[in-house]
Amino acid sequence: MIEVPEGGVAAAHDIVDLIRAKRDGQALSEAEIAWLIDAYTGGRIADEQMSALAMAVFFRGLSPAELRAWTDAMISSGRRTDLSEVPTPTVDKHSTGGVGDKVSLILAPLVASCGAAVPQLSGRGLGHTGGTLDKLEAIPGFRAGLSASEFVRMLSTVGCAIAAAGADLAPADRKLYALRDVTGTVESIPLIASSIMSKKIAEGTSALVLDVKVGSGAFMREIGRARELAETMVSLGTESGVRTVALLTAMDSPLGRAAGNAVEVTEAVAALHGEGPADLTEVTLALAREMLALARVAGDPAAALADGRAYAKYRDMIAGQGGDPDAPLPVAPHSRVVPAAESGFVRRMDALAVGVAAWRLGAGRARKEDPVSAGAGVICLAKPGDRVERGQPILELRADEPARFERAERALDGGIEIGPEEPEPAPLVLERIA
Amino acid sequence: MIEVPEGGVAAAHDIVDLIRAKRDGQALSEAEIAWLIDAYTGGRIADEQMSALAMAVFFRGLSPAELRAWTDAMISSGRRTDLSEVPTPTVDKHSTGGVGDKVSLILAPLVASCGAAVPQLSGRGLGHTGGTLDKLEAIPGFRAGLSASEFVRMLSTVGCAIAAAGADLAPADRKLYALRDVTGTVESIPLIASSIMSKKIAEGTSALVLDVKVGSGAFMREIGRARELAETMVSLGTESGVRTVALLTAMDSPLGRAAGNAVEVTEAVAALHGEGPADLTEVTLALAREMLALARVAGDPAAALADGRAYAKYRDMIAGQGGDPDAPLPVAPHSRVVPAAESGFVRRMDALAVGVAAWRLGAGRARKEDPVSAGAGVICLAKPGDRVERGQPILELRADEPARFERAERALDGGIEIGPEEPEPAPLVLERIA
Repeated sequence: MIEVPEGGVAAAHDIVDLIRAKRDGQALSEAEIAWLIDAYTGGRIADEQMSALAMAVFFRGLSPAELRAWTDAMISSGRRTDLSEVPTPTVDKHSTGGVGDKVSLILAPLVASCGAAVPQLSGRGLGHTGGTLDKLEAIPGFRAGLSASEFVRMLSTVGCAIAAAGADLAPADRKLYALRDVTGTVESIPLIASSIMSKKIAEGTSALVLDVKVGSGAFMREIGRARELAETMVSLGTESGVRTVALLTAMDSPLGRAAGNAVEVTEAVAALHGEGPADLTEVTLALAREMLALARVAGDPAAALADGRAYAKYRDMIAGQGGDPDAPLPVAPHSRVVPAAESGFVRRMDALAVGVAAWRLGAGRARKEDPVSAGAGVICLAKPGDRVERGQPILELRADEPARFERAERALDGGIEIGPEEPEPAPLVLERIA
Repeated sequence: MIEVPEGGVAAAHDIVDLIRAKRDGQALSEAEIAWLIDAYTGGRIADEQMSALAMAVFFRGLSPAELRAWTDAMISSGRRTDLSEVPTPTVDKHSTGGVGDKVSLILAPLVASCGAAVPQLSGRGLGHTGGTLDKLEAIPGFRAGLSASEFVRMLSTVGCAIAAAGADLAPADRKLYALRDVTGTVESIPLIASSIMSKKIAEGTSALVLDVKVGSGAFMREIGRARELAETMVSLGTESGVRTVALLTAMDSPLGRAAGNAVEVTEAVAALHGEGPADLTEVTLALAREMLALARVAGDPAAALADGRAYAKYRDMIAGQGGDPDAPLPVAPHSRVVPAAESGFVRRMDALAVGVAAWRLGAGRARKEDPVSAGAGVICLAKPGDRVERGQPILELRADEPARFERAERALDGGIEIGPEEPEPAPLVLERIA
């Protein structure tokens, strides 16, 4: 009588039994999960069934074995990239996303200039955190869409590439993520971890450093949740044969001074010349050292910034993907400054507030079909710890249309705190999880 | 910045905010719930969003205010029947479903014969519990589809009618129930309560007695859950101006001796002559007394069974809905008996086992489109407490095709227990909730 669920309603499909099992706290088998992901990707399980299951996973979680099977099934839904032709060790970085997080633009050429290959498949931004590809596409001519052979060629010649993930990279994740986005089922640690790691494992990298952001502008606001996500992802990577380490890094203030697209490219180029803001350079170097260690490549990333090798590699990467590293970047035609409301020390410059302001200025998108403005964004003229005088400009806003300023300024309301006491400097790298 | 959910993913529609709010344990407002049910019924909320919300409700529940708003919104999705033309007080009964539960067939004419009107809109069966309409449709000519005016005319002349709910009776519930059925979100007390009560309130009855079944063959297997469901429904009815009482009744064994369609009609007719099995008669009379008390009609239902008034009313009801009460009922052409495996007292005859056997013999359906066999079913030749000898027939199975017997017999495996000790008689009416 096992096929008769409580209440006597007939289960027309196995999927209803699986939803009920997960809902009631039972574990799904590896075979059940493999079937589930395959049937969903193939359209044999309806969206309304998968979203109910995702909500059950939100409440019940996934055991390590279930999560392993789930991630494997997502990888198997597409093709795992073969990077065996690449002559140098491969190592990638993934960030969970933050405001002003242009680290990838610096890190990929920096690590490549030290002798490891960085095969970065990236995405576009949604909401208040920018996307690496959106930033690079502010560079005239830059092409994010590389074929698999172009990608491997870039890695073998230049040593790095930052490209858009193709349709055959974990297609189950693409479909499932779009569903989770509209059904309130994004915020589940196992679902986040399997989404990120299925793509990074399928990408073919041998090693991976995760930058898990923590704070007001991050996906994870509490360090406990960030740690749990980091530990989950490190286990998944390691068990799949990808050497994986995570750093938890602070995201209460924007990283560096620029939040937008072209404005972040400009700041990344400065950092590649060894002239970047201290916080951006510190986080970038910490991640670079982890990547080189995982790739087992000896190299001094600070020296590579100082002696121009990293910048030369950046130029090769941009040019190799069709971009002109010497072309002037788009500048938004309108700007407005936000003055300090009082004199004192900047004690807080909220990352979420700045991120939402940049988004409203046009730098980000609300839906994945929306275009973004290359020139719009926010420049932080002062950062936490800086002494400012009342009326002194502390932020510069840039937009293609002046009508955007008012809503952006509203986003900043309450996001900036100035007080008489100098704030304690806050650490940037909070924890290392290996 | 309130429109920016954690993680910065833009909520393209309000529904995502509502799903997240419910998921995170916040209460939805009356206006939000009214919008939600209306938008879902109108197709402006996708099935995958509603199923995720239903799963969140499964885990988080609904507060009394939310449940009230949810039920009202479901009622408002259609038309509330106007029974003001009916000259006698109206009172209905709803059972949560059990094996052998032919009570409605007896109760409606019985209560009508005592002077109250019984406006019963009913459904078809799914799974191992039969549907009242399926049973009545075993009677040649019987028509379950009545127009609103035919329904009111039956109530005004005969005093009772058992008809199929029309498309304008709580259409939101129809759509939502179909979704819950395929998404593992049926078993939620607030969703069950609002589904049942929205239809019963919209039906237009002034009073309602709920028969909440408890036990192996019931939707609710534990008395605690059954009590919670009963209390929830009684509150919903009372707050909507429908005088409502619930009885919790036992459903560990089939009610009466027949489980099927025509076989149950035959047993109901016997009960209407005062010759029904003791358990069936006891439950029917208990419910009839509650109904008459709620309708404030003085009447002696036991006398109405004994003196033929109830049976005469039954004939009027069947004839009034196109059926021929004198026509021979369909008989399944094949039968097989199940002998007692040993001598002793029948200690247990599991309602679920018998229900699934009857279903597999053809009396029930797995999908709502499936046909049912009028003649198939199970007759219990012995009941718990009866003394049997090894080899003596204890069940008779009837089917249209002999191929069905094997699977039906398998459903009975372990469902019948015979032992040397006479079992304690178990109470039938367990609790009354008002």
